[in-house]
Amino acid sequence: MISSESNPQIKELVKLQKNARQRRKSKCFVTEGIKLTREAASYGKLQKIYIGEHLYRQEWSAKMEQEVSEEFAGALVEIVSQHILEQISETVTPQGILGVVKMPEYTLEEILSDEKAVFLLLDALRDPGNLGTILRTSEGAGMSGVILSRESVDVFNPKVVRSTMGAIFRVPFVYVENLSQTIEKMKGKGISVYGTMMEGSECYDQVDYRKPSGIVIGNEANGISWEVSESLTGRIRIPMGGSLESLNAAVAAAVVMYEAARQRRG
Amino acid sequence: MISSESNPQIKELVKLQKNARQRRKSKCFVTEGIKLTREAASYGKLQKIYIGEHLYRQEWSAKMEQEVSEEFAGALVEIVSQHILEQISETVTPQGILGVVKMPEYTLEEILSDEKAVFLLLDALRDPGNLGTILRTSEGAGMSGVILSRESVDVFNPKVVRSTMGAIFRVPFVYVENLSQTIEKMKGKGISVYGTMMEGSECYDQVDYRKPSGIVIGNEANGISWEVSESLTGRIRIPMGGSLESLNAAVAAAVVMYEAARQRRG
Repeated sequence: MISSESNPQIKELVKLQKNARQRRKSKCFVTEGIKLTREAASYGKLQKIYIGEHLYRQEWSAKMEQEVSEEFAGALVEIVSQHILEQISETVTPQGILGVVKMPEYTLEEILSDEKAVFLLLDALRDPGNLGTILRTSEGAGMSGVILSRESVDVFNPKVVRSTMGAIFRVPFVYVENLSQTIEKMKGKGISVYGTMMEGSECYDQVDYRKPSGIVIGNEANGISWEVSESLTGRIRIPMGGSLESLNAAVAAAVVMYEAARQRRG
Repeated sequence: MISSESNPQIKELVKLQKNARQRRKSKCFVTEGIKLTREAASYGKLQKIYIGEHLYRQEWSAKMEQEVSEEFAGALVEIVSQHILEQISETVTPQGILGVVKMPEYTLEEILSDEKAVFLLLDALRDPGNLGTILRTSEGAGMSGVILSRESVDVFNPKVVRSTMGAIFRVPFVYVENLSQTIEKMKGKGISVYGTMMEGSECYDQVDYRKPSGIVIGNEANGISWEVSESLTGRIRIPMGGSLESLNAAVAAAVVMYEAARQRRG
């Protein structure tokens, strides 16, 4: 059992949670909670699990570490003292288990080759809760995948991972260096790319999303950047009553993605 | 200038932020930030403002408290030391101003008499961020008002207030003791009430929301309660691709509210 915070594995785990660069270097991220960690195992991505002593005694008391490992697709098992578990947990009420998980990796070409051909693009989206909710909604609305500009928040940030509710393992996503160049490339393949903007000229439900389409959602404070807006096929607007200046980014994404799904259903 | 945390006004302000019962007793709540506090003033609801010394020097250095008060529709002005400001602020980067605001109050009858006749109902919604986002979206989608079951999170919770982006002053809302009785009452007035449920039989976009309608969103973990589900006109379902179990509550609310708005536009 690990009971010291200076244990090199614990130090590495904390770095993986706090530091996007560390995650990129090791190509790993951290899941928290039984459900999400089991999901990581079921997708063959789980490498190692850290289980708090309380949960271990409660769930697996009679079993050897080897048997627990088998339940999690052969991941290495480490038991940690309750004190350490609470230190490494990112949540207020720790569930008692964390997993070190291999990042899923997709290329832009893989994503663009999906036959449904309906894409979400994020231009410098910054809020982790928004990104998690958007990935979750993307799965529900049946998107082909999500394309993020390099300035967007890291999808492997623990808060994003939690709020995807598992969609992180099921919705393909990719970061691109230059989103407007990616849009030009998409247009070259016959995909129309629409950006949600306050000054959009077309109502979002007047677009035909049954054709190959992309939907761009901008930054929470500043919207879609000038450069990206210049490369769009069209600028769309979600009508707003009252004196509201804007919708929440995850809500705007949901409204347009579900309009696309509605049109595609029939 | 107030510079002690044991100042009775400061104690009262902290209680107003932390404690829903205290808010109900005094019928006041707290806004944070210049924009929201100015909005409270413009709706005639602002009673008192607490300004941190840094912001005061930066914005109003040459002015007397009386002149600042006039900018905020005559609210009382108190300057507080930066130390106190940081203590009473609920945000990570305090903007330097808090307002004590009279609660807007509506009756169920007022809300139900709105001629648009499209209502959102919340059955034990618990997450403050979700409620704030839902109020914000309700304004955008042009809802008549929001009806909350008594078990729902307090709308005057500082996190809800912040995330409404001002909609708290513009969207009528009311808490009711018994949501299923309220639904029966609404049906008696010719309003059809639909609940979003995983086991819903009708796709959410197959309902005619141009008629007087209510949309019920359930608790984040447990959905709509049995009692409320029994009183519904119909159970609707938002189709989900992938292996997702549910959508985020604020997203589900947005998808159905904007479908209603789309139908009503024509």
